[in-house]
Amino acid sequence: MYSDSTPHPEAPLWLEIPEDFAGLDGKLWPCGTRRNTSGELTLAGHRVSDLVAEYGTPLYVFDEQDFRARARGFVEHFPSWSIHYAGKSFLSRTVARWIDEEGLNLDVCSGNELSLALSAGFPAERISLHGNNKTIEELRYALTEGIGAIVVDSFDEIDRLRVIAFDMGKPAPVMIRVTTGIHAETHQYVATSHEDQKFGFSIHSGQAMDALVTCWEQPQFDLLGIHSHIGSQILNMDGYARASQITLLLARDFHCATNNHIREVNFGGGFGVPYLPSDEPWDIENLSDTLIRHAEKGVHYYDLPDIHFALEPGRAISGPPGVALYRVGTIKTVDLGDGLSRRYISVDGGMSDNIRTALYDADYTAILANRVSTADGVLSRVVGIHCETGDVLVKDVYLPADIEVGDILAIPVAGAYSRSMASNYNYALKAAVVAVVPGESQIMIRRETLDDLLRLDMGPHGCERSP
Amino acid sequence: MYSDSTPHPEAPLWLEIPEDFAGLDGKLWPCGTRRNTSGELTLAGHRVSDLVAEYGTPLYVFDEQDFRARARGFVEHFPSWSIHYAGKSFLSRTVARWIDEEGLNLDVCSGNELSLALSAGFPAERISLHGNNKTIEELRYALTEGIGAIVVDSFDEIDRLRVIAFDMGKPAPVMIRVTTGIHAETHQYVATSHEDQKFGFSIHSGQAMDALVTCWEQPQFDLLGIHSHIGSQILNMDGYARASQITLLLARDFHCATNNHIREVNFGGGFGVPYLPSDEPWDIENLSDTLIRHAEKGVHYYDLPDIHFALEPGRAISGPPGVALYRVGTIKTVDLGDGLSRRYISVDGGMSDNIRTALYDADYTAILANRVSTADGVLSRVVGIHCETGDVLVKDVYLPADIEVGDILAIPVAGAYSRSMASNYNYALKAAVVAVVPGESQIMIRRETLDDLLRLDMGPHGCERSP
Repeated sequence: MYSDSTPHPEAPLWLEIPEDFAGLDGKLWPCGTRRNTSGELTLAGHRVSDLVAEYGTPLYVFDEQDFRARARGFVEHFPSWSIHYAGKSFLSRTVARWIDEEGLNLDVCSGNELSLALSAGFPAERISLHGNNKTIEELRYALTEGIGAIVVDSFDEIDRLRVIAFDMGKPAPVMIRVTTGIHAETHQYVATSHEDQKFGFSIHSGQAMDALVTCWEQPQFDLLGIHSHIGSQILNMDGYARASQITLLLARDFHCATNNHIREVNFGGGFGVPYLPSDEPWDIENLSDTLIRHAEKGVHYYDLPDIHFALEPGRAISGPPGVALYRVGTIKTVDLGDGLSRRYISVDGGMSDNIRTALYDADYTAILANRVSTADGVLSRVVGIHCETGDVLVKDVYLPADIEVGDILAIPVAGAYSRSMASNYNYALKAAVVAVVPGESQIMIRRETLDDLLRLDMGPHGCERSP
Repeated sequence: MYSDSTPHPEAPLWLEIPEDFAGLDGKLWPCGTRRNTSGELTLAGHRVSDLVAEYGTPLYVFDEQDFRARARGFVEHFPSWSIHYAGKSFLSRTVARWIDEEGLNLDVCSGNELSLALSAGFPAERISLHGNNKTIEELRYALTEGIGAIVVDSFDEIDRLRVIAFDMGKPAPVMIRVTTGIHAETHQYVATSHEDQKFGFSIHSGQAMDALVTCWEQPQFDLLGIHSHIGSQILNMDGYARASQITLLLARDFHCATNNHIREVNFGGGFGVPYLPSDEPWDIENLSDTLIRHAEKGVHYYDLPDIHFALEPGRAISGPPGVALYRVGTIKTVDLGDGLSRRYISVDGGMSDNIRTALYDADYTAILANRVSTADGVLSRVVGIHCETGDVLVKDVYLPADIEVGDILAIPVAGAYSRSMASNYNYALKAAVVAVVPGESQIMIRRETLDDLLRLDMGPHGCERSP
C-alpha cells in the first residue's frame, strides 16, 4: 500500500493519501455534514443510506441551510450591492424560492429559465436575462413580464429589442455586456486588448461605447449600465480588480461622451470553489474587501457619481451545498505494468449526470459514505455506467481497500453544472434532486422515468410490427 | 477576403476555402441531398425551409434511404458475418425498426435501451447487452426477455449473472469483453500490453482466459465467444488487423486449455466517418476485404474451426445520414488584432444538442442551406445559445460574407452522438428528429416542451408563494 512517503507513481502530485477515511474536509462539505457514531455520513442529520433508500441513486442532495447561508453570505458582505444568483449553475423552483427569500436577484440564460422562475413566483423585476442569441420571442416575453434587465450582447439584439420595445410602447431596461480583455482562470488572469469569444461588446474596439451610446440615445431603451464577466471557477481575485478598473474607465468615458451617468455596474460571477482538499478557497470577507475596495477606488479615481454595483455568483452558492450519492456496482483492478495497478470503481451514474470531468477535465474527490473504513488507501478511479472510456467522475482518489459492491460513494461540491447539464446518454434517466434540512427531506426534482423519455418517441410500437 | 493563396492566419491548416458555396461534398452528405434550382438544400427532396417551417429548429433530419443503405452495406459486404448496430450512437423506435428490417442485430448499452428496442418490436434474440456496470435488474430483465447475448465485462458481473441464471434456471448467453492492448485512434493505433480503462478483461494479465474458462465451466453460462473493441472514430484499419490476431490467439489458447471451441468473435466497432472535406474515408469494400482477410488468416494460422464473426458499427451507419439544421440568430465580428477578425455566427442550438465539439474537440463543417451565395468566404465560428464560451458547434469554417439573421445553416454528419447525448443545459429543449424519404417526412422524436421538463420539478408554484 502507498503512503505519503511512497505515493502511487500514477497518482497526481496534488493527491494526498487521507490519514483517516472518517475525516471530512470542512471546506468541501455542506455545513450540516457529519459522520454519525456508526461512521456513516449524514447530511443535515439524514443518513445517506436512508436518503438513497427513499430516493434511489444516483442522487443529488442539497443542504438547504448551507445553500441559504452561502447566498446570504454574499448579501451580507456586499451590503449595498445587488447579488444576482446565476441560475444556469443549478435552478429549480425550490432554488428560485430560496434565492428570493434570501433577498438575491436572479440571472437567467433563456426564456425557459425565466418561465421556470416566474412559475415559482420569483418577481420579474429582480430577474436579468442573459444570452448571446436571444430570440424575438424570448425578448418579447421578458419585456411583457416586466423583467428587471436584459443584458444586451450584440448589435443584432439591439436591433430586435428596439423593434419589440417600440411595438410594446415601453422602454427595455438594458445592461450592456462588455468584454474587458481580462480572462481569469483558476490561478491566474491574462489581459489582452482583444477577445476571441462570442460574448459581449469589446471595449478596446469601441463597440462597447457604441452600444452604450446607441441605447442611451434611443427612447426604446432604458440604459441601466454595464455588465462584465471575466471567466469561471476563479480562485485568484486579481483579475476582478483589473476588470473593475477597465469597466469603470468605460463608465467615465461614457460620462465624458454623453454627460450622462452609468447607474449600475455588474462585475459578473465566476467565483471559484474548492473541489479538492488541496484547493485553496477564498473567503467571503476577503472577496468583499477586495472587490468593494477596488470598486470604490475606481469611483473615486474616475470621479464617478453613485454607481450601484452588482455581482453574479452561481457555483459559489450552488456548488458546495450539493452532494452526489452513487451506489458502487462493479470493482475492477487493472494491471498497469511494473507492478502497478489502478482500481476502477463503477457507480450507477456517470457522464450523463455529471459531465464536468469529461468536458472540462475537472477534478473531484469522493468518499466512502455509508460506513467508515480503517483499511489502507488504494488509488482509485470512479467511473460511470456509460459505454465510453471517458466516462469518469473522479479521476484519482485514494479510497479504502475494502470498498465493496453496494457501498455508497459521496462526491462533494457537486451542486453546480452537473444535474443542470445532465443528458440521457445511453437512455440514462436523470437523477432526482433532494433538499435536506434537519428532520426533513424534500424532493426538488423527481427522478426521470423511462416513460418520460419514451413519450417523445413517435416511432412504431411493437404491436404494429409487420409479421 | 481570403483565398487559398492567402488564407486567414487564424484558420487551421486543413481548412479549405470552398471554391463554390453551392457545392456539396459527396462524402459528407446523405445520398438524397441536392441543391434545387433556386440553390436551396434539399434532403430526400424536401427543402430545408419546409422542414424547419414544419418541425422548427434546431432539427435533426435523417435520410432514411441513406441510413438503410449504410446498414445494408455492412450486411452485404460481410456476407457470413453478423452486423450489430451500436444503438448508443443514435437509437429511437424508428431506427430500431430500420435496423431490424435491414437484417442487422442490435447492441444496447442499458436496460432502458433494451426496453426501447423491445417496445419497437425488435427481436430480443438479436440484441446484445453491453455495459461495464450492469445492474442485477438489467441482467434479470435481459435474461427474462431472451436476449441474444450479454457482453460480460467483469468478474463482479459474472458473479451476479451466475446467481440470476441459477435462479431463473436457464443459462445466460455470454460474450467475454476482452482488452487486447490495441488502442486505435483516427490515424494511428498503439499497442501496449496494459490497458488503463474500465472496460473488459485484459488478455495480457490472464484475466480474459480466466473469465472464458469460468463461464465455460459453469452451467449457468452459455459461452458464445469473445468480444473486442479497440476505439472510436477510427479511419485507419491497421489496429483492427492487429486486434484480430490477438483475439484469435486467445481463441486458440482457449481451445488448447479446454479442448473447446470459441463459437463467435466480435471485433467491435469504432469505424470512423469523415466529418470534414479534408477527411479521407475508408470504403466498405476495402474494410470488408481487410477485416475478412485478417480474420480468415487468423483462423487458418491458428487452425481454428468455424468461427462466426461479428462487427458493431454505430456512427458509420447513423452519423452521415443525419443533418442538423439551425436558424442563424446573431452575427458578430470580433476584432482579433493585427487587422484580423473572426465572425461568430450564433444559431439556435449548441452544446445542449451537440456536445461533441466541446467534449471531444471534434471538428464539423457547415453550409448555408436555405439559399446559395456567391459572396466571398469569411472565416466563421458557429456557436450556440448557451451561457458558456466553449459552446461551439463548428470551430472553423468559411461561410459566405452575406449570411444574415434568419438564414438556415446545415451541419452534415450530425446523426451520431449528438441528439443521443443531448442535455437541457440552460433549460434548452431537446430538438426534434425527423426521417425523410422522397415525398414524405416523419417525426421520429418530437421536440421536447417546457412542460416535459417542468413536470419533473416538484418545487413550489407561484400561487403558493408567501405574500
